[in-house]
Parts: sequence; C-alpha cells; structure tokens
Amino acid sequence: MSSISREGYEPLKTIEKEVEESVSPQRRKLGLPSIHVVLLYATLLAGIFLYSRPTRDTTFAEQSTSTSSLEQCMDTSPIPAKINKENLWASLSVPEAVQIRSWLSKEERGFNLTSSDVADFNENYIYLIEAYRPPKSEALAYLDEEAKAPQRYARATIHHGYMDPPTIKDYIIGPLPISKETSLRELTEIYHRDIPFNARGFARAAEMTGFILNFTAPLAEVTQDIFGGVALGLPNDTLVAGMSGPFSYDGSFRRMWMTWRVSAPGPWLHPLNFFQYIDVSGTDRSQWKVLKVVYNYQVFDSIDDFIGAWRNKTLERIPYPEQGDRSWSTRKRLTSYPRELDDRAGPRSVSFNGLRFKVDREKQFVTWMGWQMFLGFDRDMGLSLWDIRFRGERIVYELVPQEAMAQYAGNDPFQATTAWLDRYFGMGSSVRDMLPGYDCPHESVYLPAVVHTPSGSLTRERAICVFEQDSGRPLTRHMGYLEGEFGAVKGYILTVRSIATVGNYDYIFDYMFQLDGTLEVRVSASGYLQGGYWDERQLGYGARIRNTTMGSLHDHVINFKVDLDVAGLKNSLLNTSTSIQQVEQPWFDEDWGNIVTQQYITREFIDNEDNAKLKYPQNFQGGYSFVNRKRKNAWGIERGYSIHPGLSPIHNTVVGSKRLENNANWARYNLAVTKRKETEPSSSSMWNMNLPGNPVVDFHKFFDGESLDQEDLVAWINVGMHHLPQAEDAPNTRTNLAASSFYLTPLNYFDSDVSMEAANAILLSHPKTLGGEFEYDDYNVKAKYCSPPPLPPFDYSGLNIYDLKGEKTEALLAEELRKEAELYHRIMLEA
Amino acid sequence: MSSISREGYEPLKTIEKEVEESVSPQRRKLGLPSIHVVLLYATLLAGIFLYSRPTRDTTFAEQSTSTSSLEQCMDTSPIPAKINKENLWASLSVPEAVQIRSWLSKEERGFNLTSSDVADFNENYIYLIEAYRPPKSEALAYLDEEAKAPQRYARATIHHGYMDPPTIKDYIIGPLPISKETSLRELTEIYHRDIPFNARGFARAAEMTGFILNFTAPLAEVTQDIFGGVALGLPNDTLVAGMSGPFSYDGSFRRMWMTWRVSAPGPWLHPLNFFQYIDVSGTDRSQWKVLKVVYNYQVFDSIDDFIGAWRNKTLERIPYPEQGDRSWSTRKRLTSYPRELDDRAGPRSVSFNGLRFKVDREKQFVTWMGWQMFLGFDRDMGLSLWDIRFRGERIVYELVPQEAMAQYAGNDPFQATTAWLDRYFGMGSSVRDMLPGYDCPHESVYLPAVVHTPSGSLTRERAICVFEQDSGRPLTRHMGYLEGEFGAVKGYILTVRSIATVGNYDYIFDYMFQLDGTLEVRVSASGYLQGGYWDERQLGYGARIRNTTMGSLHDHVINFKVDLDVAGLKNSLLNTSTSIQQVEQPWFDEDWGNIVTQQYITREFIDNEDNAKLKYPQNFQGGYSFVNRKRKNAWGIERGYSIHPGLSPIHNTVVGSKRLENNANWARYNLAVTKRKETEPSSSSMWNMNLPGNPVVDFHKFFDGESLDQEDLVAWINVGMHHLPQAEDAPNTRTNLAASSFYLTPLNYFDSDVSMEAANAILLSHPKTLGGEFEYDDYNVKAKYCSPPPLPPFDYSGLNIYDLKGEKTEALLAEELRKEAELYHRIMLEA
Repeated sequence: MSSISREGYEPLKTIEKEVEESVSPQRRKLGLPSIHVVLLYATLLAGIFLYSRPTRDTTFAEQSTSTSSLEQCMDTSPIPAKINKENLWASLSVPEAVQIRSWLSKEERGFNLTSSDVADFNENYIYLIEAYRPPKSEALAYLDEEAKAPQRYARATIHHGYMDPPTIKDYIIGPLPISKETSLRELTEIYHRDIPFNARGFARAAEMTGFILNFTAPLAEVTQDIFGGVALGLPNDTLVAGMSGPFSYDGSFRRMWMTWRVSAPGPWLHPLNFFQYIDVSGTDRSQWKVLKVVYNYQVFDSIDDFIGAWRNKTLERIPYPEQGDRSWSTRKRLTSYPRELDDRAGPRSVSFNGLRFKVDREKQFVTWMGWQMFLGFDRDMGLSLWDIRFRGERIVYELVPQEAMAQYAGNDPFQATTAWLDRYFGMGSSVRDMLPGYDCPHESVYLPAVVHTPSGSLTRERAICVFEQDSGRPLTRHMGYLEGEFGAVKGYILTVRSIATVGNYDYIFDYMFQLDGTLEVRVSASGYLQGGYWDERQLGYGARIRNTTMGSLHDHVINFKVDLDVAGLKNSLLNTSTSIQQVEQPWFDEDWGNIVTQQYITREFIDNEDNAKLKYPQNFQGGYSFVNRKRKNAWGIERGYSIHPGLSPIHNTVVGSKRLENNANWARYNLAVTKRKETEPSSSSMWNMNLPGNPVVDFHKFFDGESLDQEDLVAWINVGMHHLPQAEDAPNTRTNLAASSFYLTPLNYFDSDVSMEAANAILLSHPKTLGGEFEYDDYNVKAKYCSPPPLPPFDYSGLNIYDLKGEKTEALLAEELRKEAELYHRIMLEA
Repeated sequence: MSSISREGYEPLKTIEKEVEESVSPQRRKLGLPSIHVVLLYATLLAGIFLYSRPTRDTTFAEQSTSTSSLEQCMDTSPIPAKINKENLWASLSVPEAVQIRSWLSKEERGFNLTSSDVADFNENYIYLIEAYRPPKSEALAYLDEEAKAPQRYARATIHHGYMDPPTIKDYIIGPLPISKETSLRELTEIYHRDIPFNARGFARAAEMTGFILNFTAPLAEVTQDIFGGVALGLPNDTLVAGMSGPFSYDGSFRRMWMTWRVSAPGPWLHPLNFFQYIDVSGTDRSQWKVLKVVYNYQVFDSIDDFIGAWRNKTLERIPYPEQGDRSWSTRKRLTSYPRELDDRAGPRSVSFNGLRFKVDREKQFVTWMGWQMFLGFDRDMGLSLWDIRFRGERIVYELVPQEAMAQYAGNDPFQATTAWLDRYFGMGSSVRDMLPGYDCPHESVYLPAVVHTPSGSLTRERAICVFEQDSGRPLTRHMGYLEGEFGAVKGYILTVRSIATVGNYDYIFDYMFQLDGTLEVRVSASGYLQGGYWDERQLGYGARIRNTTMGSLHDHVINFKVDLDVAGLKNSLLNTSTSIQQVEQPWFDEDWGNIVTQQYITREFIDNEDNAKLKYPQNFQGGYSFVNRKRKNAWGIERGYSIHPGLSPIHNTVVGSKRLENNANWARYNLAVTKRKETEPSSSSMWNMNLPGNPVVDFHKFFDGESLDQEDLVAWINVGMHHLPQAEDAPNTRTNLAASSFYLTPLNYFDSDVSMEAANAILLSHPKTLGGEFEYDDYNVKAKYCSPPPLPPFDYSGLNIYDLKGEKTEALLAEELRKEAELYHRIMLEA
C-alpha cells in the first residue's frame, strides 16, 4: 500500500521481525538499521524485481484468529513507468558532487579552497553545488526531435571570503561528467548585479556564537532577573536567540535584529520582548558590534546602558514569562474532549485492483491516466515538475516554485522588520522525510531527493510522495431520463507532494492532477507562528494567543514559474472579462421594456509584457489564459489553458516597505506574464532576501516591452494567505484554511470534456417498462474482492548523510540536525 | 461499507442471488424488486438489529481461488446515534400528509378542492403540503431547557384557481396530528405581498400542450423544412419545447419565451434559434396567445406572418441543425484516448476498524468526532442542517440553502431573458437517488427524504449520503527537533451530501465537517448547459461548443441562511480589515530609516443592518465574523466564528436587470447579516422567480435599521460561479471548477487548536543517541488487518411513490418521471 508496503514482499524473516515489533506496546522504537531495509526496497523499486509477484505472505494471517479465506490483492507495488528519455532536470548524484568538488579544489582552478565542512566565512569555500538545468531549446530538441540529450552542467556557488574584497561568485561547470572538455565560467547572465558578500548564505550558525556570548555573558544576571533565564552557551541554557531578515538593504551592511525566546519546545511561541540590533558585516569579527538594545519599548544604545537601567531600577519591567507547563506549545495530544470513536483508525484509501499510476524511481518520472511528468529537485525550492504532458501533448514545460515570502508586522523591532524570503534558507534543503500514513496516505509511493550542503550531501528516501485518491465527488454527472443522459464519472486525483520545514513553518506543496486535464497547484501551511510578546499596544498587529504571547500579522505569498506550452511553444495571453451592458432588441415588448440589461464578455490579448502584471478582476469577473492563436479546436476557437484562481487567491498587502522594496515585486500581483528567456530563469534568488534595495534578481526588469503575441510565454503565479493569527494557531497552524491554490485547466483546448474517456464511470438507462429494471454499463470495471496487503509497521528514517568525499557517515543527533535546519532562526549558543 | 453493504448481513440466499448477478456480463439489470430488499435494510438501519453482528458471509470467499485466511473486519454498518430529543425539523410523513389533505378537503374547510392529481389550474387544489418549522425560541426551550417539544405544524399552499380573482394562499395548520385542536390560518407574516396567481407553480406541463399544439400543427411543414423536424404531439416528434423564466414581472401577466430544440438526448445542446413569446396569463385558456415569433433575428408578430415569410422565401435561413450521430450530447464513454490502467477500479476509502460516525435514521441525526446535527428536508431547497453542535456547544442553529439563481445573457430572446430562481421548481423535489460508489463513496450511509407533490408523495432512499474520508493531508504537522515538536494530526472530513437535478443542471450540496471545528459549505455543479444557437453575433455571450451550438454566459449564485449562535444566542458582527501604515519608531536607525511601512489590523463592529450588505474586501484583506462580545476565551478575546471565503467567492455580476430587479437582491453581495426574525425565515420564496418587480419576499426589506449589537444574528451567505462556457462543458459541466464554497471556522472561539485532541495522530521523538531510534506515540490507534466486507453489487432504485391517499403505487416510467422533473424546461407535447 504505502511505499513501505513493498516490505510485504521481502523475505518472510524480515516481515516477521517487523510484525513482532508491530504488536508490541504503544510506544515503539524505530531505528537506523531499518534504513538498510528501506534501501533494499529502494532497489526493488528501481525495477529489478518489479514484475515478480511476491511470495504470498501469510504472516499476518497466521496471527488472525479466523476465518474467511480470501485471495490476496494483486501486488500493489508501484509499477515501473517506461520512458525512453533521460530526466534532463535530475539533481547531481552524490558521486557527481564529489567529483565536482574535487575538480574545483584542484590547484589549477586557483580557488584556494578550504573544505566547506570546516571553513570559516572568511575563507574560500564551496557553498553550493547543484545541477544546472539545460536550455529549453536543447531540451525540446532532445524530447521532440530525437536530438542528443543536452550536455549536463553544474552550478557552483563559491564564497570567496578570503578575497579582498570578499565576494561570492556563481560558476557554471561542464560538460559533465568531468573530463578534459570540462571547463568553468562565471554565471552572470541571469543576475542583475554582483552578489555582495554581506548577502551571503549562512553555512552554519556557529559563526556568530562567540560574538553573541561576548555580550550575553555580562547580561546573565539581568536576564535571570527579568526572564528567569540565561544564555551562556551551556547545555542548560534557558534562553535561545533568533535573528531577523532581511539583514541588508543593498549589501552595504549586514545587520540583524536578534530576538530572545525561552528555550522550550515551540520556542517561537515564547518570545521575551528583548532585542539587540547587531552589525555583523564583512569578514572581520572584531568589527562586529551591538548597535541597539530594546526591551519593552525602551531603547538603549549599548548593552551597558541597558544593564545600567536595570541596575538603577529605571527599567520598566513587563510580566515574567510564563513558567511551568509549557506543553501547550508542543504537539502533545490534548485530552480535553476525546472524540467519540477516535480510537478507531480512520478510513483509508485502498487500491484493491492495484495502483493505477506508474513511477520510474531512477528517472523520477510519473504517469497516471494520460498524464506524465518528470520531477526535479533543488536546494533553493525543492520539488519541481518538468515536461508535464496530458494525452501525449505537452501542457507545461516547467512548473517550479520560485520564492516564498512572509512579511510581518508588529510594534516591536523584530516583527516589524521581518520579511523572509525562504529561498535564502533553501526550501529544498528544508524538505524532510514525510511521515507515512500521516503526511501522505498509506498507498503513497515515495521518491528520494538529494541536496548538497557545505558539510556534505543528504539524501532523503521520502522527500516526495505520489498517491491517487478518490476525490469524493463525481467529476461530472447528470440524472436525465433520455438514453445516455444518466450517469457519472468518478473523480480521482493524483497528488505529487513534498513538504518543506523552514524553521518554524511547514509548507506542503501539492500538485494535483485530474482526469479532465486540470492541474491544481496548492500550498498548505502548518507549523509554528513566529510569535511576538503580547501587550495591548500590539492590538493592531495580531492577536493574543497566550498570557504573554501573540501571533503576529503577516502575509505569505509564494511564487510559481509556470511555463505553459499550450498546443505548441508559442502562445498569447488572453484577458477575458465580463461587464454589464444594456441592449435594445426588436423582439422585446413594452411589458418588460425593449432594453435588456445583461452580461457581456470582452476578450482581448495582452500583447506586451509591460501590461502583463496582473490582478484577478473585481468579483473574479473574467480571467487570464494562455492560448495558441494558430491552433484551434474543432469549433474554431484558439486552444487554450486558463489560470484559474483557487483557494485564497491573494497578493501581498504591503507595497512600499523598504524591506521588500524591489526584491519580491512579483508578490504585488496575482500573476504576471513574460516572454520566456534563458536569462530570466527565476523570479528570485537565494540572495534576494537581503537585497531589497538592489536585488540580484529584479523581477520588474523582466518587463521590458517585449511582445507576448505568439511567443514562448511564462506565467509567474502567486498563491498566498493573509495570516491574521488567532488562538487556534497554537500549537500549529491548520492546513485547512492556511491553504491557497491555482488551477491550470483546459479552455477550449479540447473539443469536449475528455474525462468522458474514463472507464471508472457509469451510464444508466431507465426501465423501459412499468416496474422494469434499470440497466447500466460500468465499462466492466470491477472492484476486486481480495485481501489488501497488511499495513507495514510505522517507521521513520530515510535520511542518509554523506560527507564531502561521498562517504556515508553516522546519523547526526537531533541537535546537530536542528542547527543545520534552523540556522539562525534558532541559535543555540555553544561556549 | 456503503449502506448497501448492510446487504452483506442478509440471509445468504439473497446475497447469493445478487452475487450471481454480479459475475454475469457487463450489462446487468437492476429491478424494482430490490426495493424491497432496500426497505428491509432500511428496517435494519432503523436500529432493530444494529447491534447484532452479522452471520459471517462466506459467499464471496468461496468464489475466490485462494488463500490467506483473514479475519473479517467488524461490522461496518452505521452505528445508531443516540439522542433523547426529537427532530423538530422533520418532514411530514406520508400518513401525515394524507391526513392533512383529508382534513383540508373536508367540506367544513370550505375550500371546494379538486383532487390535486387531476385538478386543472383553474380549479382549487392543494399545491403543496409541508412541515412548518417551529419558532426558534420554542425549539431552544425544548433543546436547552427541558421544555416540551414545540407543537407540530404544517403549511399548505392552495391554488384557488376557481376563485374570482384566482389566487394563491399559504396556510398554517396545526397543531398536529389532526385533532379537535387543529385549526388553520393564513400565513402572511413572512411575505411582503399577496401571491399573484400569475406567479403560481406548475403542477404539470400538460396544461399548456393544447395551446401549443394549436400553433405547432400549422407550423409542421415549415419546421420540417428549416429544422428537419416537427412537434405534433406524437411519440415520434423530433422537436421539443422549453420555456423561459421569469414569466412575470409583478404578477400582472404570465408570458414566456418558448424555445425549440431537437428532441434528442441532451436536447439543451440542440437549440434551433426559433422562439415564440406567448401569453398564458390567467385561468382562461381561450385568452392565451402567441405574441411574437423570432427566428434567426427576424421578428414576426404572428405565426401566420412567420409562415408567410417562409412561403414567400423572404425568410433568412440558417444552417440546418446537425443530423446524424448526436451521441456527443450524451454521457456515453469516449474511446478517443483510453487511460492506462483505467480498467482497474480506482482506490476507495475503507474503514477497516468500522465507521466512526453515527446516524439515527429515524431522527435524521448524525454525530462524528464531536459534531452533531439534525437534518431537515423540504420541497423548496432540499437538505438543511439544524442545531449543529461541536464539542457540546451549538455553533449553528439553522443552515439552510435559500435560493439558486442562474442569470443568462445572449443575443436571442430566450437566453437574454432567462433568470432562473430554482426554488420555484423545488430543489428538494428535484433531489434524486444518488448512485452508490459514483455520487458518494462506497462506505456512505444513505438517508431517505420525502416530498409531497400535487400527485402524491415521493420517498427516496438515497436522498442524502453521509461519509467520512481521509482529507489526504495532515490537518496540522510540524517537523521540529525538540521534544514534542515533531508530529502530525491526520485530516478527516465528514461530508453530508445531497444532489438536486433541476432540469438540465445538477447541484451537489456538500456540508463538510472537520476536526478543528471548521465546517465547509460547498456547492458543485454538473449537468447540461442551457445552450444557445451559435453564430458570430453571439461572441460576446459565450462560446461555440459545436457546429451550431453555443454555451451561454451565465452567473450562478446560491444563497444560504446561516444562523450562527456563537457561544450563545446573541452575537455581534465583527469586520476585520487590514491596511498599510507608516510608523516611526525610536529603535530604527538611519540605515533603513526610522519609518517602517507595514500592515495594520482594524477591527470594528457593524452594529446596524443597514451597513451589513457586504462584499469581501479587495485582495481579501480582512473579513467578517460573528463574535459574542460577552464571552471571551482564556486570552480575553471575544469568542467568534469566521465566515471565510472558499472556492469562487463571487456575487452576481448583473445589477439592474429588470428580470432580477428586486427578487434576488441577496445575490448582489457576498453576504449580508440581519437580526434574526421569525417573520424573515427565508431570503426567497418559490414565487420570487416570477415577481422580480414586486417579489413575495423582498430581501432588501430585511434591512430596516435594526441593531446587530449582541442580537440573534443570521448571515445570508452566497456561493456561486461565473460560468463562461467552453467546449469542455460538453456533454456536462465539470464539478472540479464549477464549485464554490465558504467556511465557518472558529476565531478565538477556543483557547488553542482543539484538533490536537485527535487520536489519529502521531508524535515523534528524535533519537537520543547517535544512531539511535526514533520513538513515537500513535495513541494506540491501530489499523486493523482484516478483510473488509465485499462491495455489494451495484443497484439503483429507492424511489417509492405514494398516491394522494398514501397508497404505494406502481413505479412510473421514465417519461412520466421526466415530465414531473423537467416540467416546462422540456415540454414533450401530447396530442
């Protein structure tokens, strides 16, 4: 059923062992040894044994007390998809990364590199290695015209901390694999400026701990008094720091607001209203300094001034942070109102007749009901979809999240200045293994992903899941009385999912395919609020969610690049709108008057980029579509695909904030359309967060008057949410309302609804005689009556860690993983 | 699993019979005999045998070729819900209706009634009998204060066609059952005017056929020539008529545009561009006349003039309607691109541990995961929900659809004048039995409904379905590293559904309950477009979908009455909005400037009805909530419930149309709020459609300056869709995008997220040692490994017909049912 159900086809010995565990007490242990099991199944998945039917497993049956003997359902392992093309968007493998690192480190490259796992920020080291995706023209020549596959290239980001001035450069390396042909050049054509060193990525949070401890040590007596805690870099520290972003305006400085929280689970909900503004510019730590201290609306120019006010008792104090049971900020189950029958496992989706989608794990290729697509994955944004086709025709060449913005408001320096652009942190490297049965339904097939970090490489076995579900409603239906009018097509949805946890927040990325050619792109959010300290002066900026905690008002906007190719490469942007008209008609009488007031459709093409920064119309009266003016359906209408708003179709509220001045201009609109260019591959970059005044990628520069008339077009589409927090956001935000989506859906692309091809459908005829019988045709689709494979015991693992040399290393402790994961969101100091 | 799976617990003989059928060829027959079986199960459902475990059924097992012997899952029959209160909103039973009809027909009532199954419109007859719902105060006294149940009343609508002038009156009859105490009074307090006879409901379409045949007979030669068909009232007629609405402006006349279509399956898609404007006012058929004839933009004052133009060849002709294969307008499966693996039945939801919701079939009472509600059903709008409680507290007293508007546009007299208000036709009487496994998932529990028509009573066994599904995504989740930060709550949804087919269109009404206290109300649409005749002059009014067929532009708006009672009866209307502010703060430096630009929340109460006709704000920056200012959560915030927009949050586009002038003013807004009054039970009435100039219920009159400050409030909330038809609307509209919803969701109602009470959840702890194991707590919720009961063979039936005396009668032929169902949407003439 789930990917783990592949374990059902393992030698019985293994199963028996797992089964024994599964009947042991409520609290069970899962260990790293099972990684090997997972890997073995991974091998299975890779296709070697995929066609072999499993040895029938009677282990569970023997346990059961009885009775009806029932045929086992067919193998519900994923079926291998067949594709005779390579995945052109595949990540670099661990060996490839090792090879590139080694090549870059060679003396003849002249980079004078320090190994990135030990390098300090004032040294030269490789920050990032990643596959560089091929030009679309080469990809299409390969996919559509039997040309050779494009040569493979990598991109490497090198932090030249030891240069003067220190700088960051992006390089293109290839062709791969490394050979004598391989060369290197600087990647600049996709950026609108140099990359300032002050906008650099963190390799590790530890680089700041010495500096911070320098001023927290003298503060210990004060913080103990006013917060009941200290931060001394010791394991029993009771306070923990977090930093804000953006930390630069244009790269000329690197300054952060530091906030303090109680070091308890869910620390985001335990803020203290205590802040330092620090300058950590450049490469010389001796120049770093504390610029300001703020506590309870009182501003001090130094730590000493603050301590002085405390000593002379002029400090205006606020309530001591809540002590005692802080489990309210954990995910521990509440027992306040146990739900009736909730001791029963809820219903789950079962494919009695076997799965209906196919997956090529190696090529990361998926097919389902006429759809097919390749999957990609990268550090910046995680999962992406490529060459999405439906019924043999390419619909989308590229569907890639670009950036995730979260802009806060507040009456304190931290919330008021926070405008996260999560690409900086790496939405892809923030992807974690999903929880089978919880994050994805039980029959999901999981796919792995790899990211290469400064300390090595991480592969996750459950980075992506793919599953089919009954949508719960018919896709079409009618109850008519004439022959052929009565029937229904069942609704099914194939979902491709990945979840990124960026510090406090979890983003669920869903790509949901439907039988009629519709694709929904949905992002749901969960995880912790970035809470603020509550007092009445914060009323306009959120809501109190606990004694001294508030949830702070913020907007999320997430941008997607959607390179639709509708019935060919060249498309036009159709703007459809409706308005009210009054028309006089000769056929009307005086009874109603001869003027009718009605709606009217206006269709016009937006033929220039300069007019293509778009908002959904008032009352959604109309919308935007890509059409191919040269390709018509049988009724003479240009074939098109619509961009249809789904849940929470919003854009960013705030315009004019310096902290988001020009680095996320895409967020001002619901969507925007440009002519596709290889030099405009993305609406953002990992450095954009810290360069609002002068971003590395300036989205507005894409709009330079180019034609949108029968060109290769790209839509940059937003989803998002105005998050006005409330008590129910604790402990974690609920995905049901923290969700936003858009649909890509055929618009006169076909001649009629192609979901009528579905065989999971029914057509009925009324009785022909009084008291007669209904006849029906179910297209011979029969639900099998069989015993589905047992659910495997729950397990969680799947993270494999490789060092820079590609050697598999020991698992890291949670604390180490946390540091990598949360970076400067939650800095645990170490003396 | 589904309600029919109860058949699995029937004597084996029955099962075996059904099984034999199920393995017979693809095309099988289902007959009325199985109604008896359904009734037997209905009895079972009623609770008599509900606790008895079934005799184990080995029938299916014996068929299977082998092998693993596996315990049968527990009984998945619905579990009876226990409630010690009556359903105060129950429909009249068939015996009650019979008794009331009999009482009304007694001479002492003085109504001089003709039996409604044979009455002509110029006689006196009972048009409608229905339960009249009790006053809220009495209901609450019973529910909350142990008062006696309110006395039961009925409403009867009598068409006084034989009076001079003819008139319609609504009466209240009670208390019930009929006794010496029972009396009758006219119901007027809920209406804003008398009910004009010209706005009356159709009892049967046949009343017009004689009149129509009078002018179609002379037309036969012409229509044969220009359309290749005739309408002579013979069984082989090849043309069929349909009428438009509204057919009156203020009740002073009764005039309809008649359109003609090819009499083929899906006739809505075969229009001919041929229209008559007819006057059918009053009760004297001899006064009825044809006022205008329109063909292809040519207007004639009489049938004779039209025939004359044809004879003298001045008629401008249009293409002959498409002949030959018209299966494109049926639901027959397309074989153009069979989908891979679609021969397999898709995944379905299975409750291995048994169902988790409870149903009292008699009381129409449902509970699930802390939710409980009563169901109601009526002729006008079908399914309604009452006394919806969550975790013991009433959230909604009354959740009832009010009206469904569809307003069209076009360059012809029919589409341009169509503004349906489907309450006229009876959304409730338009509810049909649902298709198990297609309209509702297999584990659904079905509930019956009854409607009383002029010809008798209809009960449907599958009028309503209730089912639980895995939502496919966690409701909350976080992947953190500290103790208690890592876990997920599974998302489940309980859906209560009913589907109404009103002529060409199908409305799916879904009420979807979630674990956190959120309730989504969603309407999805399918069925046939009301098509128009295509030519280039129609471009602004829709799109061509076939050679001579277009889909016509129209808006759907559906209004719901939502009587929220948030933490008590008295609530206030909170308007939350966000805007941009610039604030100077002392803690900022010159690096960024000391002014910050950020969002700000404004909260204000709308304290008067006159200000409570509302639209969602631009960019959804804010929204509307009901809060109880006297009840606060633990953090001092008024407890509230928000009205949160879901899919397609639109209102009607057209303002100012005479055909919707004042009879559907609720459609102008996204929502509106009034003080609740017993005299304002509904925003519409069945007569509103035909009285746009002077409606029986004038919604705007509800807004008379009353206070909304801590009063019992009602929200009137719209869902809807701007339908710009496209080729993919043929044959039927797809529910995935033809869907609209709103959410009712807690807003600081609780102190934190109560879905954290769920036991279908998991909490993990990271390994404490290097290479150690993850620990997890799954709250001991284990998926059973067992064999679910077999799916019963598909069957369709469930309609029971009773005559006016309450006698069960023979099933009607499809053609008879069609006439009842489609009335004047599709008039099959009979000579």
